[in-house]
Amino acid sequence: MKLTGIAHICQDLKKDMQVVERELSAAIETDHPVLNEAAHHLLRAGGKRIRPIFVLLAGKFGDYSIDRLKYVAVPLELIHMATLVHDDVIDDAATRRGHPTVKSKWDNKIAMYTGDYILGRSLSIVSRLSDPEVHKLLSDAIVEMVKGEIEQIRDFFNWKQNLRRYLRRIKRKTALLIAVSCQLGGMVSGAPERHVRALYHFGYNAGMAFQITDDILDFTGTAKQLGKPAGSDLRQGNVTLPVLYALNREEETKKRQIHAFLQSEGEAVPIDDMVRLIRNSEGIRFAQALADTYLSKAIHALNELPLGKYRDSLKQIAHFIGERSY
Amino acid sequence: MKLTGIAHICQDLKKDMQVVERELSAAIETDHPVLNEAAHHLLRAGGKRIRPIFVLLAGKFGDYSIDRLKYVAVPLELIHMATLVHDDVIDDAATRRGHPTVKSKWDNKIAMYTGDYILGRSLSIVSRLSDPEVHKLLSDAIVEMVKGEIEQIRDFFNWKQNLRRYLRRIKRKTALLIAVSCQLGGMVSGAPERHVRALYHFGYNAGMAFQITDDILDFTGTAKQLGKPAGSDLRQGNVTLPVLYALNREEETKKRQIHAFLQSEGEAVPIDDMVRLIRNSEGIRFAQALADTYLSKAIHALNELPLGKYRDSLKQIAHFIGERSY
Repeated sequence: MKLTGIAHICQDLKKDMQVVERELSAAIETDHPVLNEAAHHLLRAGGKRIRPIFVLLAGKFGDYSIDRLKYVAVPLELIHMATLVHDDVIDDAATRRGHPTVKSKWDNKIAMYTGDYILGRSLSIVSRLSDPEVHKLLSDAIVEMVKGEIEQIRDFFNWKQNLRRYLRRIKRKTALLIAVSCQLGGMVSGAPERHVRALYHFGYNAGMAFQITDDILDFTGTAKQLGKPAGSDLRQGNVTLPVLYALNREEETKKRQIHAFLQSEGEAVPIDDMVRLIRNSEGIRFAQALADTYLSKAIHALNELPLGKYRDSLKQIAHFIGERSY
Repeated sequence: MKLTGIAHICQDLKKDMQVVERELSAAIETDHPVLNEAAHHLLRAGGKRIRPIFVLLAGKFGDYSIDRLKYVAVPLELIHMATLVHDDVIDDAATRRGHPTVKSKWDNKIAMYTGDYILGRSLSIVSRLSDPEVHKLLSDAIVEMVKGEIEQIRDFFNWKQNLRRYLRRIKRKTALLIAVSCQLGGMVSGAPERHVRALYHFGYNAGMAFQITDDILDFTGTAKQLGKPAGSDLRQGNVTLPVLYALNREEETKKRQIHAFLQSEGEAVPIDDMVRLIRNSEGIRFAQALADTYLSKAIHALNELPLGKYRDSLKQIAHFIGERSY
C-alpha cells in the first residue's frame, strides 16, 4: 500500500492504516455490480485518508484499540467519500430533443445512489459500537455538511457574500467532520474529557486551515498537482477566500473585472484571466495568513494534551497542511 | 390535522399520530432557509404515513410508549421522504401527489442535498435510542433501498427482465422498510421475539402488496387520484408487473408494440397508447392476483399475534392496501 504524505509523519500507524484500508474495501463490497464498481473506483482514487489518521492518532490519548477505532475511522472516511460523490453530481446532462438521454441520466443517478449507498454502509458499520453519542455526533455532522454544501450552491457567483459567510460554509463543509474525527478517536478510546475537547479544537482549526489551503491551491497549484485544471472552484462559481478578498480589497480595475465575471456567471471574462488575476492578487497572501492563524490555534489546542510523540505527530500534520502543494 | 384513509382505520392512534406529525415537523426545522422550505414543502405534501402507523400499531404488542416509539416512527417516515426526494431527482418527476416536486421547484442538487439532510436528521433522531440493533436495522434498510433504486434505473426499458427480478427490486425498494417499521415498533416496545418476527413478516408481505398495487394504480388510476399523469412509471422506462406480464403473455401484436416501445426507449409508441394497452391487458388482473396472494400471506402472519383490536387494525390496513385507489 502506498502511504501518502501525512501517513509518513507517523510510521507507527502504518499497520493500522492498512487495517483501515482493508476494512474500507470490505465495507463497500457488494455483489451488486454497478455499486461495487462505482464504490471501488472511488476508493482506489485514494485521498489523504486524513480523517482515519486523525481518529487513530486521537485514539492514542486513551486506551488505544484498532478493533474499536476502526468502527469510527472507516465510517468517517466513507462519509467523506459519499459527500465527494454527491459533490460531483452535475445538473446538466447531455440532452436529446430537450430531454436528458437515459444514459446521461443514469450516470448522475448512479453517482447519487452510490453516495447514498456509501452513506448507508458507513452508518451500518458505526452501529457496531453501542454508544449512541457516537451515532449522534456522526449524523449531526452529516446534517451540517449538507447545510454547507447547500450554502455553497446558493452562493455560487454571489459577489455580495462576506468573510463570515465563507467561514461558516467551510466550517460546515470541511472543518466539522475533521473535528469530529479527532473527537471520536478520543471518545471511543475513553480519553479524559478535557483531552477529547482539546482534540476537537485541534481538529476544527486544522480543518479550517485545510480547507483554506485547498482554496488557495485551486489558484496556485498546477493541473498536475491538483488532478484538475486550476481555477476549477471559480469556474463553477465557488467564491473562495482569495477571490473574496480580491473582490473587496484589490484596486478598482481588478475589482470590476472580478465583479463582471461573477455577475455574468463566468461569461464576461475568460477563466484563465481570472485565475491569473487572483493568483497575482493580495487575496492569496491574505488567505495564507488566515490559514496560518487557524494552524496556530490548532497547535495551541495541543497544549492541553500530554507531551509525547503522538502530540508531535498531530503538530507535524498541522504543519504539513499549511505547506502542502496537493 | 387531516387523517388519511389508513389512519381512519385506527382512531385510537389519532392523538399519537398527531405527536408524530409535530415531531416530523420539528425534526426538519432549521434556520437554513432553502432546506427549511424544501423539507417543509415535502412534509406538507403529505402521504399516507403508513410507516409510522405500522410502528405504533406494532408497538401495541409490547409495552407501548409513544415517547419511545416516536424515535423510530419519525425517522422511518423521514427515511421514506428522503428516498422520495432522491427518487424525484432520478425520475425528472415534475409532480408528486399533485404538488410540484422539490426538484422542479429548485434544482437537482438542492433536491439531492435536501434528501441527504432529511436522512441525516432521521439518523440523528434514532440516536436518542441506545439500542445499536435499531441503528443497524435502519442503516441496512437504507443500503437495501439504494440497491433497489439502482436496480430500477438499470432495468429502465429492459424488456428482458423476469418476474423474480421485479420482485427482488420492489422488495428492496419498498417492502423491507415497511417490514422494518413493523419489526422496530415491536422491538422498541419489548414485544416477544416471535411476535416481532410475525410483525416483520406481516410488514414484508403487506409492503410487497402495497408496491404491486402502486404499480397497478399507475395504469388504472386517474391523474387526479394519482397526483401525476397515468403511466408515469412506464414513461420513464420503469417496467412494472402489469407491463412485464403483458410483455410475456399477451397476444403477438400487443407484445410487439410493448417491445417496440421499450426498445426505442419510449420513442416508437405514444405513451397514451401504451397506457391504454396495458390497462386493458391481462397484466392488470395478473398483478392484482399476485398482490392478493401477498395480502393473504400478510394476514396469515397475523395468526401468530394475540387476538384483539390492534391485530384487527393491521388486518384492515392490509385490506385497505388491496382496495385503495390512491
